[in-house]
Amino acid sequence: MSLRIKNIRTRLKKERLDGLIVSSAANISYLTKYRSRDSYLLITGKQNIYFTDSRYIEEATLKLRGICKIEKIDGPISELMAEACSGLKLKAIGFEARNISFAEFKKIRRGLKKTKLVPTDGLVEELRQIKEQEELRKIRKAIAITAKALKFIKSFIKPGRKEIEVVGELERFIRYQGASSSAFDIVVASGPNSSFPHHISGARKIRDNEPVLVDIGVDYQGYKSDLTRIFFLGKINILAPRIYDIVLEAQNQALKRISPGVAARDVDAAGRQYIAAQGYGKLFGHSLGHGVGLEVHEKPRISGKQKLKLEPGQVFTVEPAIYLPGRFGIRLEDMVLVTEKGCEVLSGAINK
Amino acid sequence: MSLRIKNIRTRLKKERLDGLIVSSAANISYLTKYRSRDSYLLITGKQNIYFTDSRYIEEATLKLRGICKIEKIDGPISELMAEACSGLKLKAIGFEARNISFAEFKKIRRGLKKTKLVPTDGLVEELRQIKEQEELRKIRKAIAITAKALKFIKSFIKPGRKEIEVVGELERFIRYQGASSSAFDIVVASGPNSSFPHHISGARKIRDNEPVLVDIGVDYQGYKSDLTRIFFLGKINILAPRIYDIVLEAQNQALKRISPGVAARDVDAAGRQYIAAQGYGKLFGHSLGHGVGLEVHEKPRISGKQKLKLEPGQVFTVEPAIYLPGRFGIRLEDMVLVTEKGCEVLSGAINK
Repeated sequence: MSLRIKNIRTRLKKERLDGLIVSSAANISYLTKYRSRDSYLLITGKQNIYFTDSRYIEEATLKLRGICKIEKIDGPISELMAEACSGLKLKAIGFEARNISFAEFKKIRRGLKKTKLVPTDGLVEELRQIKEQEELRKIRKAIAITAKALKFIKSFIKPGRKEIEVVGELERFIRYQGASSSAFDIVVASGPNSSFPHHISGARKIRDNEPVLVDIGVDYQGYKSDLTRIFFLGKINILAPRIYDIVLEAQNQALKRISPGVAARDVDAAGRQYIAAQGYGKLFGHSLGHGVGLEVHEKPRISGKQKLKLEPGQVFTVEPAIYLPGRFGIRLEDMVLVTEKGCEVLSGAINK
Repeated sequence: MSLRIKNIRTRLKKERLDGLIVSSAANISYLTKYRSRDSYLLITGKQNIYFTDSRYIEEATLKLRGICKIEKIDGPISELMAEACSGLKLKAIGFEARNISFAEFKKIRRGLKKTKLVPTDGLVEELRQIKEQEELRKIRKAIAITAKALKFIKSFIKPGRKEIEVVGELERFIRYQGASSSAFDIVVASGPNSSFPHHISGARKIRDNEPVLVDIGVDYQGYKSDLTRIFFLGKINILAPRIYDIVLEAQNQALKRISPGVAARDVDAAGRQYIAAQGYGKLFGHSLGHGVGLEVHEKPRISGKQKLKLEPGQVFTVEPAIYLPGRFGIRLEDMVLVTEKGCEVLSGAINK
């Protein structure tokens, strides 16, 4: 039995639960090391059962041999789940309150006779925060591919190119480098579009003398990267370099603050306060960073409210930004690993 | 006020609801014609309120002027929602049971004092089934781009190319043709990989004398396409063309059955029975098709259980298949529009 499943079983015992219905695809993938989609996993002290439908049954049967019993969903999931629970005599099991729809929850609960359903929050996600060597290797590789892509795209970003064409070239390039896909819709935001933190890249043509923001992540064997860089084209208005330097220094301030035992909100504050002190506090609205792993946004959140103390093995982004509506935005996003003494900037080799 | 919002208000009245919390991004996009993400929309008889955070506030304020009041989420959504409900004196409002997590539902309910929350299922999705001319135009364009991509990729699919490289070329090509992204992870499944209905394309190199399945869809201004074709490389084992012909004929049988007033399950049966009659019934596990529009999978579902009667204006896939585990799979997927008299195969111009 894998260590990950052992860990979650220990956690369940502590919560006095006989089992857990795992509905998050990322959580199932973490526990089984099989890239799950559209399925459920029931973890109990004795047995693990994977519920999937005809689309995945051949593959799952091959890949999950020895890890889970496989149950084919060809009727209501509620009945299958109910049978499993009564067969294993489970009295109280958890479900993932954030990762299941209200309708699915109701459906499953309706089927259960003697088994109580208890909401849980982040049991598997908490385990996922601390990355193992095998996971770090994949994250490093995802970052290395992203770094190559940013280097490659530099010469392609020219006046007259459409944002979406730049995205297309990146999407192609990363797959030749071993990525299975991008980790999210790659953002290429030129000129004023860069002031939208989550711009949808479109037909706008890049022009001379403007900043171009590229926010890109890839998926390497299930693990993600998430990095942002700014490319300057031609002569840039005097304000942009100044804003850039402020964001860069805010990032440095935040990076310096990262260390085991430090509260996540203090890291957020370190970056935010510097930006505020320069007079741009109102133009940095989102949180400073977020965990990255099997998902592009996972624990820990690095925000103003997070009291959680950092621990070695956590991987997250540090992405301060300043957005000037209608003009431009500057965001710098790197990924770090919390170490015993501080942090390692995993994306440190990429020019800024 | 838009017709779509008028229609949903009429529907709410019928359900005796004072409002609806819309949490599905596709549903919000449909109602507002603004591509929403990570936000909530509260529709009431008097006012519509869009709740979003700092990442989207600039864009949303620009694009939703005159359609919704905008509320910025910078604390708990439950409080904002509660204030809005008490301000508008709402007694009972619906929420989308399939499109909200159990945890989010609990959070919102906790805040509400005098407003009752009622689960609803598919109110907006039902409206979305019948496509307007403007929507059909976008779907046709998405299909046209996909058709071009399939034509373009034919000469690229050669022995020695990796599946993922084929995906990369397609991802690049579609963006030069005006797509904003692929509609899902494009599937390029070579040889035995084609027997997995939802194969994840990888490093396998395409070989001589095997079928290559390409399942591709694009996003054009929010609207999706979803099509599958098979490419044969070299000399093909005598069984594959035979299976191909069976799947093709099963598709024809299903297409002939499509007409307003016919139950969706009868269309499923028309394709399925033909495959079964040829002795391959057990090797076609999934349903015959699904609606396509703002989402790649939406109503109507064309499955063995759907009693729903077809109506003009619905758009869905017809995708019979036969999967021979460990050997190969053949799936043919087209998109159709239900017309007054029968159906139009929207992807009919693409070679089979």
